[in-house]
Amino acid sequence: MSGFGIDHLPYGVFSAAGGERRVGVRFEDTVIDLYAATGRPEFAARSLNQFLALGPEVWRQTREEVAGLVVSGAASIPLADAILHLPIEVGDYVDFYASEHHASNVGRIFRPDQEPLLPNWKHLPVGYHGRSGTVVASGTEVVRPSGQRRAPADSEPTFGPSARLDIEAELGFVVGAPSALGDPVPYAAFSEHVFGVVGLNDWSARDIQAWEYVPLGPFLGKSFATSISHWVTPMASLDAAWCDLPVQDPTPLTYLGPGHVRGLDIDVEVVLNGEVVSRPPYRTMYWSPAQMLAHLTSNGASLRTGDLFGSGTISGPDPDERGSFLELSWGGQEPFGDGRTFLEDGDEVVLRYSAPGTGGGRITLGDVTGRIQPAR
Amino acid sequence: MSGFGIDHLPYGVFSAAGGERRVGVRFEDTVIDLYAATGRPEFAARSLNQFLALGPEVWRQTREEVAGLVVSGAASIPLADAILHLPIEVGDYVDFYASEHHASNVGRIFRPDQEPLLPNWKHLPVGYHGRSGTVVASGTEVVRPSGQRRAPADSEPTFGPSARLDIEAELGFVVGAPSALGDPVPYAAFSEHVFGVVGLNDWSARDIQAWEYVPLGPFLGKSFATSISHWVTPMASLDAAWCDLPVQDPTPLTYLGPGHVRGLDIDVEVVLNGEVVSRPPYRTMYWSPAQMLAHLTSNGASLRTGDLFGSGTISGPDPDERGSFLELSWGGQEPFGDGRTFLEDGDEVVLRYSAPGTGGGRITLGDVTGRIQPAR
Repeated sequence: MSGFGIDHLPYGVFSAAGGERRVGVRFEDTVIDLYAATGRPEFAARSLNQFLALGPEVWRQTREEVAGLVVSGAASIPLADAILHLPIEVGDYVDFYASEHHASNVGRIFRPDQEPLLPNWKHLPVGYHGRSGTVVASGTEVVRPSGQRRAPADSEPTFGPSARLDIEAELGFVVGAPSALGDPVPYAAFSEHVFGVVGLNDWSARDIQAWEYVPLGPFLGKSFATSISHWVTPMASLDAAWCDLPVQDPTPLTYLGPGHVRGLDIDVEVVLNGEVVSRPPYRTMYWSPAQMLAHLTSNGASLRTGDLFGSGTISGPDPDERGSFLELSWGGQEPFGDGRTFLEDGDEVVLRYSAPGTGGGRITLGDVTGRIQPAR
Repeated sequence: MSGFGIDHLPYGVFSAAGGERRVGVRFEDTVIDLYAATGRPEFAARSLNQFLALGPEVWRQTREEVAGLVVSGAASIPLADAILHLPIEVGDYVDFYASEHHASNVGRIFRPDQEPLLPNWKHLPVGYHGRSGTVVASGTEVVRPSGQRRAPADSEPTFGPSARLDIEAELGFVVGAPSALGDPVPYAAFSEHVFGVVGLNDWSARDIQAWEYVPLGPFLGKSFATSISHWVTPMASLDAAWCDLPVQDPTPLTYLGPGHVRGLDIDVEVVLNGEVVSRPPYRTMYWSPAQMLAHLTSNGASLRTGDLFGSGTISGPDPDERGSFLELSWGGQEPFGDGRTFLEDGDEVVLRYSAPGTGGGRITLGDVTGRIQPAR
């Protein structure tokens, strides 16, 4: 089972034999060239955005059409002959902080003498805007960022390569259909706006972040690179993956859809230089995807096609389910694996994702890879 | 003196008589249609981005060419016949916090028993990413946002219209020429990348912001709307406006260009319902535009054409030089003007900007207006 069977059919952008970029769908080890197969102009494009902007009815019809193309074998090229690109032109990139286990771990590591969760955390999905211009496709090498940081023992900051370079294993949600400025998108309208999901690694320089982030939040500690998978898995192929998330207490305010806390039963694997070092379970998240979207637009902020919002680091309750090196090494104090704390030059990280498919087996979402290059 | 003479010549996007959007230049009370005048395809565009991407040598040549068009009177239409639009397609929007007086005032208002400036503030220009999809053109009405907030006396948050809606009078910098991922843009390369400036009002819902912002920074308290002027004033027309900023102590790290702290002598006026309520002076800022750009890219983050970075609220040392209602009313405790604290429905705010021109007089930057609509 490849995980890329008829029940999956994710979308991406590819080029082949020196040609222009086009929209394609992956089926097993082939890519179906949707422009060659259909002649529709939205598929002769450098991103999925034109297609996504057409809305959920077109997404549904196209999925049916693609299933027919798979049967006919039309317009298919070997995956090995395709160069894969960033699938979307990212509008705004918002990152949430929706795992209770992650937020609690971070609180315990940085503020060991206080309550691990801050007062607002269980009332709203905390989030912030990231840099959309540095969202890159899986496989893009990540240059170790330099920046200003001050170690606890130092009186003055210094500038230099980050010594605490980290990953954040996340799931990303891709907005297809836009919304109007001033009009919140209600909780129940999630499926009318969100087209699908991507794997997402929110690379983080913990030393830069720690020095800069009070009071306006993470900035250069995150903005050097965020990697997403080549393939966008449509929500339609995740129908069998929906599951209840943990009960929320206190019950959130009405606009956050109390009593409908549904998430996705997606398993994640964090692979460091070929070894699985963690298995974060998305089903343990506190805030749901629909709650994040409702919150994001509750002030009337509009959505654009290509907007991307991340779940925040996915961490489960067990030590081997943590989605960041910060947590796996407990702030660098407890080396894990072969004595690791943070990322070293040359390290390769792969995030793998799988979920129940509608056909009874499992589908494999696009993975997210990146190798660390030395600081320039 | 209109402030829009031959020494200014700002760029914008307009449409007239039901036609397509085009790039134009304002001269006195006319708009020069650059596509009609030159036939260059980058001017038959819905934003300045295609033109800006061509880089500083083309910007310089075009400014000379436009000066010639002014003399000939070619391709000019009355300003009153032009509909003005958002001038740029915004890439990433970053907002800084570069006024010492503003940051100190905010510190005193929110943390009266502590040092007003946080430990990092004089070492780096603190900044964060805002929402680029809700950057709107001057004149766009601003719907009062609703959101979650918790008053100090309350144990639980509630959801409803913001009761502390505010402005932030800022200057915005527009990036023209992009940079490569992984390569910092040095302090001295500012003029190779930044095309010009806009007026900017970073509307803020203080009650939403206060409840949400720890630990990841402002989010929904800011993301509902950011207004910018229709006209982008090229850096070339601000040659006479450069001035020394206050001395920085401690001396910043090398990448922040120690000893070259040059800013712009731009006067700002905050006008509420026709009355000037404040006159923030940009020359009193602590962090310079070139320092903000160097910091923003110091981790290797790339620039895209259309990236926008704001100065943060401009506040001078005197009480009538404060750039936000939060400061003018000292957290709502000291009503100003006719008994005002925060914005009421129907209020109109205009931000006006002027600077020394190269011709010996003053130029008038594009103003930024917005009227508050009731919450939906």
